[in-house]
Amino acid sequence: MTATRIDPGIHSAITAGNQRLLDRLAKRDFGGMAECYTTDGQVLPAGHDAVTGKDAIAEFWRGAAGLGITRADLTTVEVMPGGEIACEVGRYRLFAGDQQADHGKYIVIWKEEGGEWKLHRDMFTSSVPQAS
Amino acid sequence: MTATRIDPGIHSAITAGNQRLLDRLAKRDFGGMAECYTTDGQVLPAGHDAVTGKDAIAEFWRGAAGLGITRADLTTVEVMPGGEIACEVGRYRLFAGDQQADHGKYIVIWKEEGGEWKLHRDMFTSSVPQAS
Repeated sequence: MTATRIDPGIHSAITAGNQRLLDRLAKRDFGGMAECYTTDGQVLPAGHDAVTGKDAIAEFWRGAAGLGITRADLTTVEVMPGGEIACEVGRYRLFAGDQQADHGKYIVIWKEEGGEWKLHRDMFTSSVPQAS
Repeated sequence: MTATRIDPGIHSAITAGNQRLLDRLAKRDFGGMAECYTTDGQVLPAGHDAVTGKDAIAEFWRGAAGLGITRADLTTVEVMPGGEIACEVGRYRLFAGDQQADHGKYIVIWKEEGGEWKLHRDMFTSSVPQAS
């Protein structure tokens, strides 16, 4: 990854949005996780079609937790603000109990909705080599 | 995917940038593909750490072509302009000869550099279910 480039204005809103998402994952509050996304928000995961809208996003995260993911850790590497949206690039780690289950990188396009910055497009890729 | 939302101003520059990338892939011009990215551009692929800079990006695409990918097809679904950057969300298809080898979705953060819009951050995820 390149050096961290953070715009301080938008950064605190994104940090708060990420923390809200992580807190709700730890509590297995999948509906609450979906509320962190915009109304027409999308998760764009590997091995799966685009997941669109809050109900589908709640089910997606319920499924991920069902695979044993109990906690995640997000590190913002850079934020590129752009008017109505902001692009965040970061690194993630997923944990199953005390074990690190996966690590990788993500791009989130954030969008303000109802006075709050929410995840609008969310894509992540594991950095762990795939079994061949 | 949601309905297509395209900003016409930036859209033609992104279409041209994508076409340039695809033409160079078809010609196996991997250095030329890397020139479609910004100086500190990154590809953020699954199963691999972030690939940063033109030399590494050229090698990355050389490796992908070495797996048999001969051609790709990109469809822009939406463009979200944001001042110095623009976020594109789209769908891709990869071909090995006449066979579709993969399909999925991508997010590209475009950035203007030297008067030309270039790929700055490039992430894509297959929609094909992973073998378990």
